[in-house]
Amino acid sequence: MIGFLIVTHKDLAEALMNVCDLILGRQEGILALSLDPDAPPEVSQQQIQRALVQVNNGSGVIILTDMLGGTPSNLTLPFLQEGKVEVITGVNLPMLMKLAQLRTDKNLVEVAAALKQWGQKGIAMASEVLKKK
Amino acid sequence: MIGFLIVTHKDLAEALMNVCDLILGRQEGILALSLDPDAPPEVSQQQIQRALVQVNNGSGVIILTDMLGGTPSNLTLPFLQEGKVEVITGVNLPMLMKLAQLRTDKNLVEVAAALKQWGQKGIAMASEVLKKK
Repeated sequence: MIGFLIVTHKDLAEALMNVCDLILGRQEGILALSLDPDAPPEVSQQQIQRALVQVNNGSGVIILTDMLGGTPSNLTLPFLQEGKVEVITGVNLPMLMKLAQLRTDKNLVEVAAALKQWGQKGIAMASEVLKKK
Repeated sequence: MIGFLIVTHKDLAEALMNVCDLILGRQEGILALSLDPDAPPEVSQQQIQRALVQVNNGSGVIILTDMLGGTPSNLTLPFLQEGKVEVITGVNLPMLMKLAQLRTDKNLVEVAAALKQWGQKGIAMASEVLKKK
């Protein structure tokens, strides 16, 4: 089963995880890592490495970061590994709601691509959605 | 100047706002409203109404919610008002990073559409982005 690691600035990762827990209940193999903006990069990177080991049961890990170009995202990029560790930026709740459903799929790249799509699809203007109904 | 209201489950709204403050500094006319999942709907709706009044300086308000179909999102829908109050779902950090730049635009619907696009564009697979470089 694919592992997931949410890595963000400050408490955003925990906050996202808490909402997931509220809606879906606590799930195995998903960790939230909120990086301290004042911590030295090497300390943050060690935290990421340890968390990756923790959530990886051999099926690889998808890292979800808050923003491309942000420090948390930049610190995860050295861990990219084709088919084994993927990074998705711009994490939001609609994306996280699909983790449980998608993670049993064997192909990590396909799961990552599907999560990206669900995240994007979840961003909508309510007035447009209501008009379509 | 358009007002913004982030409405989510639990502490997610504050967590998002804290990251914005960290990166861009505190900005006027943007409020975070984290709804207590145990509060009665009418209490939450009153909180939303009060917050809307607080951030609306006459140019209207864009409400950013965590997920279409979620309680916070559902509670904001009665406040939709064409050209005056818009709701965008699936809030993420890339979207929030654009608020300051876009909010001076006069047309609320255009700003909402642009925010939706920035939010979606901010969701990327790092391996794909790096290949393009």
